[in-house]
Amino acid sequence: MKQLVIGIDYGTDSCRAVIVEVATGAELASSVKYYPRWAEGKYCDPKNNRYRQHPLDYIETLEWAVKEALAAAPAGTAAQITGMAFDTTGSTPALTDGQGVPLALLPDFSENPDAMFVLWKDHTAIAESAEINALAKKWDEDYTVYEGGIYSSEWVWAKMLHVLRKDTKLRKAAYSWVEHCDWMPALLTGNTKPETLLRSRCAAGHKAMWHASWNGLPSQAFLTRLDPLLAGFRDHLFTDTHPSDRKAGYLTKEWAEKLGLSTNVAVAVGALDCHFGAVGAQIKPGALVRVIGTSTCDVIVAPYEEMNGKLIPGICGQVDGSVIPGLIGLEAGQSAFGDIYAWFKRLMEWPVKNLIGRSPLINEEMKNQLIEDTLNSIIPALTREAEQIPVSESAIIATDWMNGRRTPDANPLQKGAITGLTLGSTAPLIFRALVEATAFGSKAIADRFTENGIQINEVIGIGGISLKSPFVMQTMANVMGMPIKVSKAEQACATGAAMFAAVAAGICKTVEEAQDKMGQGFASVYQPDGAAHRQYLELYAKYLEIGKFTEKTCLLKS
Amino acid sequence: MKQLVIGIDYGTDSCRAVIVEVATGAELASSVKYYPRWAEGKYCDPKNNRYRQHPLDYIETLEWAVKEALAAAPAGTAAQITGMAFDTTGSTPALTDGQGVPLALLPDFSENPDAMFVLWKDHTAIAESAEINALAKKWDEDYTVYEGGIYSSEWVWAKMLHVLRKDTKLRKAAYSWVEHCDWMPALLTGNTKPETLLRSRCAAGHKAMWHASWNGLPSQAFLTRLDPLLAGFRDHLFTDTHPSDRKAGYLTKEWAEKLGLSTNVAVAVGALDCHFGAVGAQIKPGALVRVIGTSTCDVIVAPYEEMNGKLIPGICGQVDGSVIPGLIGLEAGQSAFGDIYAWFKRLMEWPVKNLIGRSPLINEEMKNQLIEDTLNSIIPALTREAEQIPVSESAIIATDWMNGRRTPDANPLQKGAITGLTLGSTAPLIFRALVEATAFGSKAIADRFTENGIQINEVIGIGGISLKSPFVMQTMANVMGMPIKVSKAEQACATGAAMFAAVAAGICKTVEEAQDKMGQGFASVYQPDGAAHRQYLELYAKYLEIGKFTEKTCLLKS
Repeated sequence: MKQLVIGIDYGTDSCRAVIVEVATGAELASSVKYYPRWAEGKYCDPKNNRYRQHPLDYIETLEWAVKEALAAAPAGTAAQITGMAFDTTGSTPALTDGQGVPLALLPDFSENPDAMFVLWKDHTAIAESAEINALAKKWDEDYTVYEGGIYSSEWVWAKMLHVLRKDTKLRKAAYSWVEHCDWMPALLTGNTKPETLLRSRCAAGHKAMWHASWNGLPSQAFLTRLDPLLAGFRDHLFTDTHPSDRKAGYLTKEWAEKLGLSTNVAVAVGALDCHFGAVGAQIKPGALVRVIGTSTCDVIVAPYEEMNGKLIPGICGQVDGSVIPGLIGLEAGQSAFGDIYAWFKRLMEWPVKNLIGRSPLINEEMKNQLIEDTLNSIIPALTREAEQIPVSESAIIATDWMNGRRTPDANPLQKGAITGLTLGSTAPLIFRALVEATAFGSKAIADRFTENGIQINEVIGIGGISLKSPFVMQTMANVMGMPIKVSKAEQACATGAAMFAAVAAGICKTVEEAQDKMGQGFASVYQPDGAAHRQYLELYAKYLEIGKFTEKTCLLKS
Repeated sequence: MKQLVIGIDYGTDSCRAVIVEVATGAELASSVKYYPRWAEGKYCDPKNNRYRQHPLDYIETLEWAVKEALAAAPAGTAAQITGMAFDTTGSTPALTDGQGVPLALLPDFSENPDAMFVLWKDHTAIAESAEINALAKKWDEDYTVYEGGIYSSEWVWAKMLHVLRKDTKLRKAAYSWVEHCDWMPALLTGNTKPETLLRSRCAAGHKAMWHASWNGLPSQAFLTRLDPLLAGFRDHLFTDTHPSDRKAGYLTKEWAEKLGLSTNVAVAVGALDCHFGAVGAQIKPGALVRVIGTSTCDVIVAPYEEMNGKLIPGICGQVDGSVIPGLIGLEAGQSAFGDIYAWFKRLMEWPVKNLIGRSPLINEEMKNQLIEDTLNSIIPALTREAEQIPVSESAIIATDWMNGRRTPDANPLQKGAITGLTLGSTAPLIFRALVEATAFGSKAIADRFTENGIQINEVIGIGGISLKSPFVMQTMANVMGMPIKVSKAEQACATGAAMFAAVAAGICKTVEEAQDKMGQGFASVYQPDGAAHRQYLELYAKYLEIGKFTEKTCLLKS
């Protein structure tokens, strides 16, 4: 008998299921299924930054993915699976009724976007987040302190307040709310009642202003003052939260049948994807795990002794047990990373799309092929040229705040700048400066932790750019002056979910034991070049000066 | 009998001759001839910024241009011509022998670039200009004060010292030096002896540290201290200088025959091209004349009462009579203007040349045509899109120092910056910001004059961009908050030369009278939009802040 578990990773577009053997970490089978309604663009309004997902998208893709993975695995696999865990995007909450059913599953609201899950990147609640921040700053207790001091429009309270305000009928039906990562285990274990379902420490601590020191969620007085329509809401929510080594329950008979599994499958308390990803990438004290994509999500775990009760200023959040039980989980991030390269690519695309695209000289078919080829080769060609340039010629200094700044010291109004331009500044030189800018932003985050006594010895990179761009990774190692390992786990979130499933099932006693057994190791290590690092320290000092300048003078319209 | 004159304008690439009727300003004929050796790239080394011109290029093209213009003019024209004047680029000096013959005209040095005219844009004398500045700052008398306080590597003393140092044989043959604008009248009137030929107030005052208050050129003690090899040089030069309403003499028999003119032709003292251009564009007190091309040359004339003995800090120079006799000529300029648009165009060209240019999808002929069409349409297409954007959306703020800053307050190490960037910053938005940056740089120059009591009521634009880009001109009017007239004189320098020829010939008593008679008026006037101007004042304040910041922190490597 093998000891097998299933990890489920709900991303922005799809549900992924992986079946893993605990003893070796070997992946027996996996499957990815794309949300069908989301793929059609339903319930979304990108112009107004409205992004909603129907709960049926989650339910259906879970069933398809698990069944397909089981079908692809060796015979007898299903019976050997005894653990399951979920991570999801977040904050991605939905209003529920008194039984914990997301309102969009009720016939009256099945097509109402405000009754659905409000996806992490939905920005419809900007006004509400501003109100929360304003109130928090004058309240006796600042409930935002463990979440970086600024409550985001991407987070649950702002979003729930926004949808409640919009729809009177919905407001009457709404009894509570649930995060996607909490709803999945609740649903599968048959414990969806808002007052009793097990809530994730990770989601609650990072997104819902939950903290033990003020007895859980913000006080009812605060919520009612925020908006009287929140009166009574707190009683329908929770006081306790749980790390994901905690078992939420076992699969109900109904769900066991649906998925083709047994009712012996223990289900873990859920969590947010980056945090499971960090575990999957073998996070431990001293390592900064960076999920590097369009933006970054940076995670650290620190022992209590190292934290010593400190509040680290200007990061996204710090929550006891949000990543690994017994350690403080710390979160930070750059609001744009790959997006900055994509922005420069769009600039380079301009003449191709606008001028070549309108040329009458060549026929449409050839034109389309030519344009497609050209657009695809922009970043590779810029990279090839940029990586030939020695650090000593890095005279252009850019900043990485084209999408505002998340950490350190959130300032959504910060803007990007490119300085040191001459008539000889070429596209590859500017591209290189942008890569350096994203590396400077990375160093600024690491420095904020180390300046506050949190040790960082190495960086572990996961996510697309880690594997795709050695140039970016080497530049980051040179700027940060520390080695960067790239995790072999291409789907680190799902791997992390499998680790938590192993703990929930009792196969591993601790998350650390699961990491030891199931960790996939590292694909490569980028060692910093000492000479380059010393040169970069000078440029980095200038990067910081530019930041102070553009911030102080509020150069740009808000 | 008509009263006719010839204006000769020596540009960077060619010699232009125009035959003009004084009474009406009508152009009877003109001709342009390109320097043949220069066109072949001879004697130049662009990689090392060495640009030299052979005196034969000047002599031959003069003869060809005058003859061709005469041939194209009505019969009998030659006999009616009684005046001639020259403007040239500058500082463009050459070493001469004791007879005032440029050394490259001697057989021994006919192929030696150091014996030729050192063109204005030659930058081989950077070390020498630094030495001059260092010495000037510790000398009792700062000889650079009327030239903006910083002696440029583009100016005569630096250049002559550089070539003298390089070549021992040349050094032995060198007795004196002559500016191109002084050599032409000297040669044609048969008075080339270094001690007696008439020197231009304009060239000497703006480029040779000549000033009446210290009795002409810098003292011999200063020059010898600069380098002992300059010992005795000052005695072979000059103490007096002359405005260009002064007659240098009459055509010699030899030159009258060569050109097909009579010996009754009076030749004016020469001057530098921008100054004649300003006169040709009808400069008068209260008007700022801007020659707008790759960079700008800005000229003002101010009455003595207005100047009141003042030194205007941070401009290029102020010289009594350098433009119009009896007025102080003031010079300033932006070291990059059209060059900044050309730089952005090169960025946009990158994917076209590098990626489309290497595509195997289309054949070479079609590819070349496609690329050429595309490159040609970049600026027009950017302009079309940029001019649709309202000022209220100008959130990107750039500076115009991609080629250092000439005025106000010369700083060749200043660099350009683009701030206020977001992921939504498109190519047309950035292009618009660059156009605004060049307009901010224009305003900074005008402000420096007005802050020092020099009145400016209007701007007169000449040069390519004035006529070619209504978008740039309107933006400049809006930023500066004053009307901008565009001179009808497409060849304002040659027109100005004709005006001085009319004065030298005694047909007009003053330069002002020549301007009244021969001025060609204005092609268009751009009126400032008051609302846009008020919005731009805010952005301009930020532009100035960025300037202080990038200067103070010396952000970039030199």
